[in-house]
Amino acid sequence: MGKTVYFGQIGKLKRDMIEEYDTLHANCWPHIRKLIQDCNLQNYSIFRHEDMVFSYFEYTGDDFDADMAKMAADEENQRWWEHTHPCFEKYAYGDAEYYLDMKQIFYNE
Amino acid sequence: MGKTVYFGQIGKLKRDMIEEYDTLHANCWPHIRKLIQDCNLQNYSIFRHEDMVFSYFEYTGDDFDADMAKMAADEENQRWWEHTHPCFEKYAYGDAEYYLDMKQIFYNE
Repeated sequence: MGKTVYFGQIGKLKRDMIEEYDTLHANCWPHIRKLIQDCNLQNYSIFRHEDMVFSYFEYTGDDFDADMAKMAADEENQRWWEHTHPCFEKYAYGDAEYYLDMKQIFYNE
Repeated sequence: MGKTVYFGQIGKLKRDMIEEYDTLHANCWPHIRKLIQDCNLQNYSIFRHEDMVFSYFEYTGDDFDADMAKMAADEENQRWWEHTHPCFEKYAYGDAEYYLDMKQIFYNE
């Protein structure tokens, strides 16, 4: 088990897909919920203000790239992304297609 | 001890105060770190992308208003805010002077 790494990510939704994104996440598929945990992403929240979404999670594994590859290879997750990705205004922040990693500038236990 | 409540807040910095805000939080005063915990705010992160800041914390107490009043009444915290508040572009998001509470639309343990 690695040291916990804290992720904060910003993304921007298409104005007419805000309700769809909320609804999808209010009814997230059980397989996706389990997959997130199996890929060592814990304490995962998404917050929204208007078209801005912010994703927070803690990575507790020891090979982030391998865990993200496992997530990307999962067929049900690919179907999930077919629903969620079209909600995004791509490349709204920095060079990220969907969520952009922000820099953690403060932490207090 | 109350049920944990997850907070995600967005704020906007003045362009010429970004470095100051980073530096303040990289050198946060020990009294402020302890006060945050004494006011039942745990697992507190601030993330930044350009002039956008995102604040995440978990409230574990049972009287949020009383704990926030305790924080606001603390004299050293008032001095801390004299340093941090001028960094903000006020009322950038919604009706909040500094950080605006976002809506939590997803949670996974």
